[in-house]
Formats: sequence, structure tokens, C-alpha cells
Amino acid sequence: MNFKVPVGISNRHVHLTQEVYNQLFDEEWEKVKDLKQTGEFASNLFVTIEGPNGSIPHVRVLGPVRKYVQVEVSAMDAHTLGVNPPVRKSGDLAGAETVTLVTDKGRVEVKEACILAECHIHMSMEDLETYGVSNEQVVRVHVKGKREGILFAHIKASENGVLEFHVDRDEANAMLLSNGEELEVEV
Amino acid sequence: MNFKVPVGISNRHVHLTQEVYNQLFDEEWEKVKDLKQTGEFASNLFVTIEGPNGSIPHVRVLGPVRKYVQVEVSAMDAHTLGVNPPVRKSGDLAGAETVTLVTDKGRVEVKEACILAECHIHMSMEDLETYGVSNEQVVRVHVKGKREGILFAHIKASENGVLEFHVDRDEANAMLLSNGEELEVEV
Repeated sequence: MNFKVPVGISNRHVHLTQEVYNQLFDEEWEKVKDLKQTGEFASNLFVTIEGPNGSIPHVRVLGPVRKYVQVEVSAMDAHTLGVNPPVRKSGDLAGAETVTLVTDKGRVEVKEACILAECHIHMSMEDLETYGVSNEQVVRVHVKGKREGILFAHIKASENGVLEFHVDRDEANAMLLSNGEELEVEV
Repeated sequence: MNFKVPVGISNRHVHLTQEVYNQLFDEEWEKVKDLKQTGEFASNLFVTIEGPNGSIPHVRVLGPVRKYVQVEVSAMDAHTLGVNPPVRKSGDLAGAETVTLVTDKGRVEVKEACILAECHIHMSMEDLETYGVSNEQVVRVHVKGKREGILFAHIKASENGVLEFHVDRDEANAMLLSNGEELEVEV
């Protein structure tokens, strides 16, 4: 059964461990905005990402802290930095790229941290039954309009998951997607 | 019958009329590189594109001159410039965006000139028969790999057309395409 998913566009961002957080910041972060996925939030903190060929300032830190540092960039960003990150799911970081995170307080080289995010559809366990799909299943998301195309996305189900199709900035630009726009999933 | 097409990535560029060429340059252009499509070439000349919100320097002029000025940018570029160009085929410019082209010699506002290019497959008239497709037909180009997806592209046949799938920088980034890479067309 086909179903609709709203688009959520992820700009470049970083997730920190408590340890790296402490190396980069003295202040407590503040929550600027709750993200759609339960518990996740945009903080008021920013870092500069440095790579061998260049740097990108003003990259937002998302919360809460995680068990791993993860730096999610676009293919364009990777070119700017001079790194070659693999396309990965969150937390699958073996062989990911090394970059350096910089703030006024400090600089931390983070190894196996930088990836291009694989596009995916968040949903709850109940949604799996409702839509007749299984966790990690790959489905086709059909983008209509003048830039018609199909993105292959995997299902990412969790207890508190909220239905949302996560793409990065390159995918959003290529397909001219807007936040909240509803796309059809072909199962 | 499915067939293979090599990818050609178009970075941002401009095509000029003889009149606008003369307003922007005193010198004769030189051919830096022949493009794959017969007669088309990358010149040694560059312009700055200006929009209401920003500008993009060092944008290459392609030759030969055409009967219309056409400024082809990515969605990211459009955001930088502060314009909202439509997705169009070459030469279909009614309602296209206005930008200003600037060189040391002069500045020219070009109306109905700026577009996002519709991805397309160049081929010869003979190729139409070989592959069993018709001019302007929309086909599916299947990108395999970690960023799997399908781009819908129209066929653009011409006497001297050379088989090539033209995408812009956003599409290449989103699908992690390389110049010359062969993709499968599903007819």
C-alpha cells in the first residue's frame, strides 16, 4: 500500500559525546527548537568543521549528547573540506572520515566521525504495521513535479519515531524539496 | 530495451548573444576545451552573476554565441543570488529569472535568462532508432550504489547529438555522480 511521508531536510550538523562537548564548550547549551523526532533538539551552539582543504564555520550542534561523535555534511561540503566521507546510516561509523571541530575554547580531531547521511524514513513501531513495511526495508519515494525522480530510502523504526523522510541538503536541492512537503512512498 | 548513457555534469555557466558578448568583453574568446556536444566549447571568459541577495564570481562563458542569453545555475546558486528560476529546457525562457552579468568592461541586466536546467539525454537521430525512443520522450535513468535513485530525463535528439546524460551540480551531488560514469536507462 502506498503512503505519504512529510519531508525533513537536514542541513549539515554535528552530534557530540559528553567528552567532546566538554572539550569544546564551557557553557550549558540551550534548546533552540525541538526537532520532530522525540527528544532531539537544535541547540544554540555552533562549531567550525576543518578538513585538509578548507573549513566550514557556524555548523549547528544537535542534542542530546550521543555515545559517538557524528558529523553529517553534504557532498558539496565534503568537497569544500577536502574529505571523502562514505554514505552511512547514523552510528555506522567504521571507516568514516576524520575532521577537526573548532570553537573558541578548543579544537578536537574526531576520527571515524564524518559521513554523508543515507536518506531514511523515521516511523514508530505502530507505523510499521499501519503501512505494511518492515524495519530497514528499502522503499521508493516518488518526487513529482518538474524535477521528477525516485529516491530509495530505508525505513528506520523506533519506539518514539515520528513519520518523516530525512534527506540532506544536496538531495533537497536536486529534487527541489521543501520541509513538510508530502511525498508518496511506493511499496 | 534498456541502454547505457555516460554522465556529463554541467556546472553553472552562461550562454551569450553576440550583442551581450560585445557589451561585456573587448577581447576575442579562446576555446579552452571542446565539449562533447558537437560545436559547443568552454571559453576562457568569465562573468560575475549578480542577484538581489548576492553574487557568484568566475562563472564560465560557453560558446558559440546563441540567439538568446541563458544563465544556468544550481538551486544552491539560486539561493545565493536570491532568485527563483524555473526548471526549463534550453531556450524555453518565457518567465525565466532576471540577473545581472558583470565584467570589468560592463554590466548587463538579462531578463528572462536564468533557469535551472532540466536533466536530459543528448543523442543523434540514429540513436533514436538504435535505442527505440522518440525525441522528447521521458525515460528513467537508474543510479545504483549507496545513493540509489531514479532521475526522470527527456530525450534531446539532434543531427549532431552525442550520447550523454546532462545533469547539474545539485543532481550530481545528490546521486554522487562522476563525469563519464555510465548509467542505465530504463525504457
